[in-house]
Amino acid sequence: MSLLMDNQFGELPVDKSVDTKFFLESVAYLPPFFDCLGSKVFVPIKSDISGNITKIRSVYDKDPAKYATLQQIVESEKEAYGTEWPKVGATLALMWLKRGLRFIQILLQSLADGEKDENNPNLIRVNITKAYDQALKKYHGWLVQKIFKAALLAAPYKSDFIKALSKGQEVREEDCMASVRQFLINYTATVDAIYEMYTTLNAELDYSV
Amino acid sequence: MSLLMDNQFGELPVDKSVDTKFFLESVAYLPPFFDCLGSKVFVPIKSDISGNITKIRSVYDKDPAKYATLQQIVESEKEAYGTEWPKVGATLALMWLKRGLRFIQILLQSLADGEKDENNPNLIRVNITKAYDQALKKYHGWLVQKIFKAALLAAPYKSDFIKALSKGQEVREEDCMASVRQFLINYTATVDAIYEMYTTLNAELDYSV
Ligand SMILES: CCCCCCCCCCCCC/C=C/[C@@H](O)[C@H](CO[C@@H]1O[C@H](CO)[C@H](O)[C@H](OS(=O)(=O)O)[C@H]1O)NC(=O)CCCCCCCCCCC
Ligand SMILES: CCCCCCCCCCCCC/C=C/[C@@H](O)[C@H](CO[C@@H]1O[C@H](CO)[C@H](O)[C@H](OS(=O)(=O)O)[C@H]1O)NC(=O)CCCCCCCCCCC
Repeated sequence: MSLLMDNQFGELPVDKSVDTKFFLESVAYLPPFFDCLGSKVFVPIKSDISGNITKIRSVYDKDPAKYATLQQIVESEKEAYGTEWPKVGATLALMWLKRGLRFIQILLQSLADGEKDENNPNLIRVNITKAYDQALKKYHGWLVQKIFKAALLAAPYKSDFIKALSKGQEVREEDCMASVRQFLINYTATVDAIYEMYTTLNAELDYSV
Repeated sequence: MSLLMDNQFGELPVDKSVDTKFFLESVAYLPPFFDCLGSKVFVPIKSDISGNITKIRSVYDKDPAKYATLQQIVESEKEAYGTEWPKVGATLALMWLKRGLRFIQILLQSLADGEKDENNPNLIRVNITKAYDQALKKYHGWLVQKIFKAALLAAPYKSDFIKALSKGQEVREEDCMASVRQFLINYTATVDAIYEMYTTLNAELDYSV
């Protein structure tokens, strides 16, 4: 049915560890999300996120047992890399990936909550801007922020975005949003768990690009 | 010595055919050129150009004898693809690649000719803008043009650009420009030959992205 519903994230266990294999499988369906934004200018973002996923997968593939959870990857790298860490390896890739995931989460949540620009109810700029401000802005220097502002003008109409999320089918906005809400449950829990882990392990950095 | 001089393009034969193997070898050294611009915002451009090169190489590798020259590739594809052509295959990749090559050519030529903003002699914005206007602007919609204008602000100082071109060594501007002039001879002839071929074979398109 919808792009997102086909690839639900799994429920987290009590200890909130994130299974690397399942995570990589679910997250592999997210780069096409940026195609839903409808413009080629989002290609570099899609590649950046795909690159993060490839990096994490290549570490996992080296020793699937050792790296069974995302926590185990980050902890092993902390041991292995000394002072280079955390700006290295899968730790760095996941640090950035989680920001892209948070961006998607906040954007979808804001749409599902019905937040809108009353004067332009078919635009999603307010929702994208909210997601950007909370998830990414502080990690971007003035130049990338400026490029974001320009790229925002390429954002699709809400109706087109919903159609794209629904794989090209015309669905009622309310039906699409019901799917989105369902998707967000495990997705948000997973993203939250990764953020908490970065705080707990002191793996977070706040340099900007 | 310099990034460019290490990888001179070969002299063209009288019929101006471009040897695919030599072309691919020489052009492989150009994506790092964008690192000389010094900012991460140029990464998407570097990937786009690298993607073009990979596409052409993958066609060549299928049958190096059949595709010995770039002309042979474009002519074979014209035969093979019917109405899809020329927006397809290595023909499309080379169509865009030549524009990136032209951009580099005009930028370097403008620097070598001493064109500058008299009020800001250590900036290269006038040179980049000239190259962009002549090589790319008409193939970009208003949004990408706007993003270009923002990205332009990330352009390096001339002195830093020259240092990067000279692989990090401090060289006199005049010595660097002598190398650039030398490099431009065969390089410009090659780029011109590719443009002529696209005109002759009716392979050029002017859609914008
Ligand atoms: C002709 C004119 C040409 C002009 C060219 C201008 C091009 C402008 C390019 C804009 C930037 C594209 C986005 C990419 C930004 C990236 O720079 C950042 C940091 O990227 C990280 O950097 C690390 C090192 O510091 C590692 O390399 C990470 O890689 S590693 O895997 O190796 O560890 C990598 O992800 N990622 C980010 O900021 C993440 C971005 C997520 C985006 C989320 C959605 C935003 C949606 C906006 C909708 C309106
Ligand atoms: C968080 C905020 C996020 C915001 C994200 C915004 C990102 C903005 C991205 C800007 C665009 C990056 C440049 C890439 C542009 C590309 O779209 C175009 C066409 O690209 C071509 O398209 C074809 C199909 O039409 C095929 O796919 C070609 O691929 S194929 O091989 O498959 O056939 C492909 O090269 N190439 C171009 O325009 C070529 C660009 C050459 C650039 C030369 C130098 C310019 C230097 C400027 C210096 C100041």
